[in-house]
Amino acid sequence: MIIVMTKDSSTDQLRLVEKRILDHGLKPQTFRGQERCVVGVLGTIPPDLKDEMELLPGVIEVIRVTKPYKLASREFHPENSVVMVGNVMVGGPEPVVMAGPCSVEDEEQMVSTARAVKAAGAQILRGGAYKPRSSPYSFRGMGLDGLKLLQTAKQETGMPIITEVMTPADVDIVAQYSDVLQIGARNMQNYNLLDAVGELDKPVMVKRGLAASYEEWLLAAEYVMAGGNTKVMLCERGIRAFEQYTRFTMDVAAIPVIKRLSHLPIIADPSHSTGKWYLVTPVALAAIAAGAHGLLIEVHPNPDIAKCDGPQSLTFANFSNLMHQVHAVTAAIAS
Amino acid sequence: MIIVMTKDSSTDQLRLVEKRILDHGLKPQTFRGQERCVVGVLGTIPPDLKDEMELLPGVIEVIRVTKPYKLASREFHPENSVVMVGNVMVGGPEPVVMAGPCSVEDEEQMVSTARAVKAAGAQILRGGAYKPRSSPYSFRGMGLDGLKLLQTAKQETGMPIITEVMTPADVDIVAQYSDVLQIGARNMQNYNLLDAVGELDKPVMVKRGLAASYEEWLLAAEYVMAGGNTKVMLCERGIRAFEQYTRFTMDVAAIPVIKRLSHLPIIADPSHSTGKWYLVTPVALAAIAAGAHGLLIEVHPNPDIAKCDGPQSLTFANFSNLMHQVHAVTAAIAS
Amino acid sequence: MIIVMTKDSSTDQLRLVEKRILDHGLKPQTFRGQERCVVGVLGTIPPDLKDEMELLPGVIEVIRVTKPYKLASREFHPENSVVMVGNVMVGGPEPVVMAGPCSVEDEEQMVSTARAVKAAGAQILRGGAYKPRSSPYSFRGMGLDGLKLLQTAKQETGMPIITEVMTPADVDIVAQYSDVLQIGARNMQNYNLLDAVGELDKPVMVKRGLAASYEEWLLAAEYVMAGGNTKVMLCERGIRAFEQYTRFTMDVAAIPVIKRLSHLPIIADPSHSTGKWYLVTPVALAAIAAGAHGLLIEVHPNPDIAKCDGPQSLTFANFSNLMHQVHAVTAAIAS
Amino acid sequence: MIIVMTKDSSTDQLRLVEKRILDHGLKPQTFRGQERCVVGVLGTIPPDLKDEMELLPGVIEVIRVTKPYKLASREFHPENSVVMVGNVMVGGPEPVVMAGPCSVEDEEQMVSTARAVKAAGAQILRGGAYKPRSSPYSFRGMGLDGLKLLQTAKQETGMPIITEVMTPADVDIVAQYSDVLQIGARNMQNYNLLDAVGELDKPVMVKRGLAASYEEWLLAAEYVMAGGNTKVMLCERGIRAFEQYTRFTMDVAAIPVIKRLSHLPIIADPSHSTGKWYLVTPVALAAIAAGAHGLLIEVHPNPDIAKCDGPQSLTFANFSNLMHQVHAVTAAIAS
Repeated sequence: MIIVMTKDSSTDQLRLVEKRILDHGLKPQTFRGQERCVVGVLGTIPPDLKDEMELLPGVIEVIRVTKPYKLASREFHPENSVVMVGNVMVGGPEPVVMAGPCSVEDEEQMVSTARAVKAAGAQILRGGAYKPRSSPYSFRGMGLDGLKLLQTAKQETGMPIITEVMTPADVDIVAQYSDVLQIGARNMQNYNLLDAVGELDKPVMVKRGLAASYEEWLLAAEYVMAGGNTKVMLCERGIRAFEQYTRFTMDVAAIPVIKRLSHLPIIADPSHSTGKWYLVTPVALAAIAAGAHGLLIEVHPNPDIAKCDGPQSLTFANFSNLMHQVHAVTAAIAS
Repeated sequence: MIIVMTKDSSTDQLRLVEKRILDHGLKPQTFRGQERCVVGVLGTIPPDLKDEMELLPGVIEVIRVTKPYKLASREFHPENSVVMVGNVMVGGPEPVVMAGPCSVEDEEQMVSTARAVKAAGAQILRGGAYKPRSSPYSFRGMGLDGLKLLQTAKQETGMPIITEVMTPADVDIVAQYSDVLQIGARNMQNYNLLDAVGELDKPVMVKRGLAASYEEWLLAAEYVMAGGNTKVMLCERGIRAFEQYTRFTMDVAAIPVIKRLSHLPIIADPSHSTGKWYLVTPVALAAIAAGAHGLLIEVHPNPDIAKCDGPQSLTFANFSNLMHQVHAVTAAIAS
Repeated sequence: MIIVMTKDSSTDQLRLVEKRILDHGLKPQTFRGQERCVVGVLGTIPPDLKDEMELLPGVIEVIRVTKPYKLASREFHPENSVVMVGNVMVGGPEPVVMAGPCSVEDEEQMVSTARAVKAAGAQILRGGAYKPRSSPYSFRGMGLDGLKLLQTAKQETGMPIITEVMTPADVDIVAQYSDVLQIGARNMQNYNLLDAVGELDKPVMVKRGLAASYEEWLLAAEYVMAGGNTKVMLCERGIRAFEQYTRFTMDVAAIPVIKRLSHLPIIADPSHSTGKWYLVTPVALAAIAAGAHGLLIEVHPNPDIAKCDGPQSLTFANFSNLMHQVHAVTAAIAS
Repeated sequence: MIIVMTKDSSTDQLRLVEKRILDHGLKPQTFRGQERCVVGVLGTIPPDLKDEMELLPGVIEVIRVTKPYKLASREFHPENSVVMVGNVMVGGPEPVVMAGPCSVEDEEQMVSTARAVKAAGAQILRGGAYKPRSSPYSFRGMGLDGLKLLQTAKQETGMPIITEVMTPADVDIVAQYSDVLQIGARNMQNYNLLDAVGELDKPVMVKRGLAASYEEWLLAAEYVMAGGNTKVMLCERGIRAFEQYTRFTMDVAAIPVIKRLSHLPIIADPSHSTGKWYLVTPVALAAIAAGAHGLLIEVHPNPDIAKCDGPQSLTFANFSNLMHQVHAVTAAIAS
């Protein structure tokens, strides 16, 4: 941590800053520039020290130098982490595609979609049983019945299941019926929920919040890992920026950035980030070309009558074409 | 709802659009412009119809005309709502100030702060027992012990209490020890939590999410109201924009906008939105001048040693000055 | 400047960093923490050094400690600057109101508006002769004829004139016909234009760019001042954030922030920031309560038929009410 | 255009709206829903009509249905446009790579870079002679001497030149020495500059402004085309969002969106959007996979000593690797 003093800070102010650092069992190291005096702090910095130091008289700025996350950081875990989902390797050399409908609607829909996406090459089946919806009057998912239909589809196809959990009280039941628990963007800072999935021994995918910085996102992963569950993957699903033509703004650079800052696998969601089916394929290929470890794609037997988010769902035929191109781009960047 | 067709949409495409509208028991009304054909939809629109129509061939855009929220809307409730907190009127002609520390730390801190803010003119006491913190390693609040200290402070001063609830499982206990339940910005779209407080007969304050549009924010209020609890107030606490000098960007125009779109009281939080104590007073006065029904202000006996968010806490003396100016500005805009 | 080395940077990497600093005639000061080694740089830092240092092997981050602007900075000019416009003092204790139509349309419109805003208490007359419009097919202003009508209105009322200049070739003519030259938000980083007005001995108002940080905005002022013209005032006119209900998002905290970082006067524009006439008064009062040195307000004899930006123009009657409240709030915050 | 009336608008208010539409020689078509009355406007809508209608009593919202740009729109020009730069086809099936240093520094630097990027497969040479810099104290380019060095490099290698023009007064000289004139992001709404390049018969590349919506960006292109110059290409170079780790946020979805809305070629700039050399290759490949017609890449013989923006420049070796992968991804998506 670096503490920057104002140009005309007094010696007494400097002494107080140094004393506070020593009070925490840390060591101050002061150096004086032509225009500024700055104090370095050596040792392990408690998370709230920055706030405390900013208040002292004569201090103009406090700059954190070490990252506030450790378990999620590549510096403390240089090798890539691989998260096993059944026998599917997430974070390995091959990108993993998780596909399926936005919402579980009925058995026919789930099983036919599972068969179609499996045939096209998807490895994990997605489907929402508990749906976060901005309006209380929208369809909010089938709940436990939906989880059971996901199980049926798993039995029929052998595909592991990823599905969203929205609240701590549902963690056990969702964990029982699924292989990966998804934390949605709107819950990325629902800390009780992060704590709850941190106690599982089951993969968790943490989607980036609409307005979350990389650091906040990695701290959300850190919550899960601090609870003891290191089977964490991340998912970039678009941030909120000023452009309203697309539902969100896909931050494709997040993929190489996260790979640099963290050892955790990084997945991309071109369906939710764009909100329009005709943008899904180009953005999915972009994510693969940028190095994503996988994709999360909405597919529906008949997007016209999907119970939610139809505009971004692919038909089976379009999904099959997408998979063909995903393989080609994967081969191209590996060459 | 208005459905805009592409320039070269066919008659068959138009017929399909009209048929779908009729299938929902609604009535299409088509008119043809020089460059466009558009179809109006008359009747009560189900929330997911927009998604469905966007998918039809020949459709270029679907525009919602009625607001997706009703209970929170001024159109359906033209008079201002007043929420009573004990015998404090929130939403009436006088702005209400809710003040206190970021976190409950100990009895001495809570009681002395309660006395000081009451003496200065605050009507409601704030203090966090459950704290949402971006790092799992930060102080996360005293929990139930904190709620009990809030009660002690209430007994000593008679001030009603506002405090945050973070998860559905805590709603009952927080409701038991407080007079207003606060939904934090990071939980504005934690729908299970909104449902849970919607079942109470107790005031709820819904803070705006970091990236929430006015519509999404009002829909969060609608969740609570749809559950039967109409004692809802809103709080603008800054949005995330590109500027990083302030912690968030206070959207002061939100105050008159919300007063136009909704009948619910609107409070402003200059402490969290700015993140710097020396910005709290000017931004608080700005909110009052813009017509806010109240303020939420962090005050601490000694901000230097506050357990969280010290940089934005006011001292007792600064808070007292703030109150003096709040009264003056209130009188000025009423004149 | 602080250079942060990676955890496992080598001694050779550190030596290279130190050598580069010495090559620039500066002095490195190294200190080693438990997890990091950092190097401080003492002396006057050239603007491009940060870029250079970031590239060296072993360097993870470079943090600038001194601000990149000097002439605009309060640290180097602690007293408030006052800019005289005729005999109107901008930056003094009384807020200055600049009012008038978005565009100059005809003599009757300009003169009647000038008389009305003067009668209501405005000190400076605004009106656009050269209009930046997002569409090439919109009305783009009367040009020189518009400047002449501004002069007429000045002769009739004695009010000094503020008007926008869009390109270096027009600087001389606009300077000849006006008392303050306005640099619009879209031209805030039109450096040739900033250079051109920097050569004048005439007041310049620099509006904040739609996406400009405080630092970039102050650097735009620095451009003008570096050219020798220190008669600079700033204008907050709303930034682009995700909310689309208002035209832009008024960043009211910018007012106290700029007053802290800079000695230059800070004006607020509630008309362009909100884009809706019914939001202008509450946001104007908010700006005054936050400490703005003045306001820029659109007023039109008949907003219904204004040639541009009618939705945000006030009628004479509404403007007169606004002035009444501005005086009341000014007195309130001075009390 | 669709005009939405408030729930309780009166018949008189409706009549006034209809009358105004008729006054403009347009035809109103009214339909009444259960909750709303809306009026459609048939015919060619003048750009300022929306503002005018919004002001009328009883009007709650005005929605534009036709796009405000025509020449740039795919609806009015369904086939892709190809812009010829010398004999290089921009907008055809093969992506075009424009590479070179941020700034022209000296002959040796320019010629060696030109040879290296040509050898690696780049088709157009970039280099800045006039540099927009946020600080007035930074290196601002060599000006005419720089243009001459670009000519030298062209003579040595046969590569056409792209370089930035910052102000109308420089348009002629820049046009004389270059093959494509670049309008930088900060000048995207410098309308005098757009007008000036609109009079040329030479290709122009319009970079997206930091805060420009797709519509504003296409309107900037429309400015150039309305002047008679249809040789326009667009360049996505990152927008300003809240994340500060990368310099800007590359909006990769802009590529397929622009291809849908417009017929103009779309180029991507991964160097400026990311600001970090190690992100350039993954983001460049992402852009190609998303369908970009070309790339703009900074390359420098020795990024460590580049006069500007060194952190994002590639070495010759890294650029050569990038080109190898660009070809592979291009082949993959064409397969």
